[in-house]
Amino acid sequence: MASCLISRQLSLCVQKNLWLSSAGCRYVSKAAAKTQVEYDYDGPLMKTTVPGPRSQVIKTKRVCLQNVGAVNFFCNYEDSRGNYLVDVDGNRMLDIYTQISSIPIGYNHPALLKLMTNPNNLSTFVNRPALGILPPENFPEKITESLLSIAPSGMTRVQTMACGSCSNENAFKSIFIWYRNKERGHNTPSEEELTSCMTNQGPGCPDLSILSFMGGFHGRTLGCLATTHSKVIHKLDIPSFDWPVAPFPRLKYPLEEFSRENAQEEARCLEEVEDLIVKWRQKGKPVAGIVIEPIQSEGGDNHASPDFFRNLRNISRKHGCAFHVDEVQTGGGCTGKFWAHEHWGMDDPAEVVSFSKKLLTGGYYQKDELQPYRIFNTWMGDPSKNLFLVEVLNVIRRENLLEEVARSGKALLNGLYELQAQYPGLLSRARGQGTFCAIDVRDAATRDRLLLQARDKGVLLGGCGDQSIRFRPALVFKEYHVHIFLNIFNDVLAQYK
Amino acid sequence: MASCLISRQLSLCVQKNLWLSSAGCRYVSKAAAKTQVEYDYDGPLMKTTVPGPRSQVIKTKRVCLQNVGAVNFFCNYEDSRGNYLVDVDGNRMLDIYTQISSIPIGYNHPALLKLMTNPNNLSTFVNRPALGILPPENFPEKITESLLSIAPSGMTRVQTMACGSCSNENAFKSIFIWYRNKERGHNTPSEEELTSCMTNQGPGCPDLSILSFMGGFHGRTLGCLATTHSKVIHKLDIPSFDWPVAPFPRLKYPLEEFSRENAQEEARCLEEVEDLIVKWRQKGKPVAGIVIEPIQSEGGDNHASPDFFRNLRNISRKHGCAFHVDEVQTGGGCTGKFWAHEHWGMDDPAEVVSFSKKLLTGGYYQKDELQPYRIFNTWMGDPSKNLFLVEVLNVIRRENLLEEVARSGKALLNGLYELQAQYPGLLSRARGQGTFCAIDVRDAATRDRLLLQARDKGVLLGGCGDQSIRFRPALVFKEYHVHIFLNIFNDVLAQYK
Repeated sequence: MASCLISRQLSLCVQKNLWLSSAGCRYVSKAAAKTQVEYDYDGPLMKTTVPGPRSQVIKTKRVCLQNVGAVNFFCNYEDSRGNYLVDVDGNRMLDIYTQISSIPIGYNHPALLKLMTNPNNLSTFVNRPALGILPPENFPEKITESLLSIAPSGMTRVQTMACGSCSNENAFKSIFIWYRNKERGHNTPSEEELTSCMTNQGPGCPDLSILSFMGGFHGRTLGCLATTHSKVIHKLDIPSFDWPVAPFPRLKYPLEEFSRENAQEEARCLEEVEDLIVKWRQKGKPVAGIVIEPIQSEGGDNHASPDFFRNLRNISRKHGCAFHVDEVQTGGGCTGKFWAHEHWGMDDPAEVVSFSKKLLTGGYYQKDELQPYRIFNTWMGDPSKNLFLVEVLNVIRRENLLEEVARSGKALLNGLYELQAQYPGLLSRARGQGTFCAIDVRDAATRDRLLLQARDKGVLLGGCGDQSIRFRPALVFKEYHVHIFLNIFNDVLAQYK
Repeated sequence: MASCLISRQLSLCVQKNLWLSSAGCRYVSKAAAKTQVEYDYDGPLMKTTVPGPRSQVIKTKRVCLQNVGAVNFFCNYEDSRGNYLVDVDGNRMLDIYTQISSIPIGYNHPALLKLMTNPNNLSTFVNRPALGILPPENFPEKITESLLSIAPSGMTRVQTMACGSCSNENAFKSIFIWYRNKERGHNTPSEEELTSCMTNQGPGCPDLSILSFMGGFHGRTLGCLATTHSKVIHKLDIPSFDWPVAPFPRLKYPLEEFSRENAQEEARCLEEVEDLIVKWRQKGKPVAGIVIEPIQSEGGDNHASPDFFRNLRNISRKHGCAFHVDEVQTGGGCTGKFWAHEHWGMDDPAEVVSFSKKLLTGGYYQKDELQPYRIFNTWMGDPSKNLFLVEVLNVIRRENLLEEVARSGKALLNGLYELQAQYPGLLSRARGQGTFCAIDVRDAATRDRLLLQARDKGVLLGGCGDQSIRFRPALVFKEYHVHIFLNIFNDVLAQYK
């Protein structure tokens, strides 16, 4: 792995904590000089294992709060910079998980800090409005500069929401209302509909369904959860809807070796989708919409071909179901295009595209025919998040971050290919688009151990699916950072030789 | 109405726009000198009807955004202060609706502005963490200073969430998990449960239910919506769960005249609750929890006696259902106590208390026996909102705002009593707790007209239920402001003589 020769200095710095000053260590890297992020640190610096003693102390004090068990460690966000998350023990880690893929341009980006010092912005933070009824004067302008400037093809309407789950819940509602209006053929509900809906009964509350995919994740509130099928722990004990669940293609890697098998697998899944649509219509629970992620993220970074999505889109049209692309995790540039569905090359990709995470605000785009009326709540988003988003988009454009992502992603995927060639019994199925990459580990226990070992050496990664590692760096993750990661990961893997 | 004599100057100021300078008009009021809010304006100032020409222009530009139809007008939040909301046409209105009851201590409170200028707080705004796994160092401290310092009796655990709907959705899930663990008697689900839940089927996704009340409002996402029964427009066309809906007492006013009838009405509703619990158990959809607002807010400001709630709490205990008090609108001090359920005088009021709006962050408290495990999402709230909440609570304590609310509330309710005595065919059922007051108007059309007429004279109010006006001022709404409101409202009503 020529490009990943371990620099002696880096190796020492990472493995033998505290050797170097807090100013950090320097690497010898070809890519470094050209692409380094100015406000970034120049490498990980580990002082303790993670969680360190200070994190442990805080954790024991926190017994009365929330779910302490899930806390990894406590963070020092003031000292975190760019691609580096600093913890309360002074450990500085290269962050390739970025708060579950929700930090777009790294920590404490100067453009965002500057925005905070502008006195004109203060009142946006201090006075959160009921955006649906009393928006601030600059709201249309901020939405035009931000969300509408990156609207998916064919979409001119956007609705902001507070989080990903609320975005999908309300998108589903929008789809149901659209579907019933189509069925009705007019806008006047019957007296029976008006009365019955007040006690949750039909015909006012109709037996409509959303078709989703095994392995998909669309959130954890009750409506979203009925379309989430990635882990038992999310779903067990929670009442749900009898909605159809289709298989998502399980592709074989390397793709070029299995093109025929994979095409067959995708055809099988599409056929099953059509069968389910027919079956649920016969059951009296017509499919009003199909919801899908461009890459199943929580479910294990499962990819499908652009052809699969184009065909699925056609099936949705044929059966009069809305097509809802959930870009909560894939949106925002990490695949090398702003929206992952752009890789499908379609002018009319969907009726609904939902987002959150890297977009900082939740929400969804929709086609004109899905009317926004009747979608409402108190806050309807948060204008302070829109302020940040305008700056994030400026940075993405100014610094050509989508191109950078494509470049870093290529280096990352090539590095993963090399690693899986080196460790064939341990690693497999390296895959990705942009820096949105993943690799499988031989089993869940080894995957989990690898994650902790990498963390103790200064690299934060996440798991997904049963046995995958997912890579979710910020958009400012450069080729330079890829090599830092590969060096450290190579070092971790050496123990498995 | 002795206490509400219209000051000649105020009347001129309000009715004949532009007569006075933008510094505003001065009132003669006994209460003014003592309680005036320092950073507040000293009265409404109307320059145009509302929405004014500038709002209209912005509205026409906004066709591609969200639901433009619902926008009342556009606001100038920079110039808004204390109890006064300023619009883009320079109209300054006494705000007794406060962004659907979500502004705790008025606009641009100096304490909140000061917090924004503290450089130590910047990174909390700029780096939103995944709070469930990587909390900031000061998170336990901020939660202890804020949410835990106001925890309802018997509750030591709190979970933050992004909004009211997410709070209720996750509280319901917590209740379902608790109920199933009780039913199971151990923590090991069967193989059949593990498999079936992945496709939304029983026994893994059990047929459990939440009992709610006709007229209740608990949010609009699919789980919450199944417990919301206030308006057709929220529910029509959206699939729902077959969950039981009990009648909420419809009290007759004045309460002292109808004490016997009202007690009977409450007994009837409680009996129906028990019948429904039995019936739904027989149906195979056991009631895992009962959700209720201390005052049904969206549904028309429907009150019930402390006895009703105490008896309902006992019924929940008797049948092993969790009792979930939804304080999203009633919480935060507006009833004169921090939580409305404190008026019931119980040591063990509930298993769950949810909140949002005036608390600035969503979330819910729960008793220890409801374990927090398995409740998770990316953001799990927003620490920047907790920062603000700490300051809001400091202001509430320092300025004795709960006492002020009790005082203003008494003046407001007395004023409403006098008005309904003066306009018996027009106004009725004046009711309230603290400043959380309401009054009924003879019909919906007249109510809506009254709201617009008051707005054009510089007072913002909201409607609720079929024909009620609801009062939802901030906690800094003093007796002084009550008199400004009553003067203006009296003036509006005079047209109906």
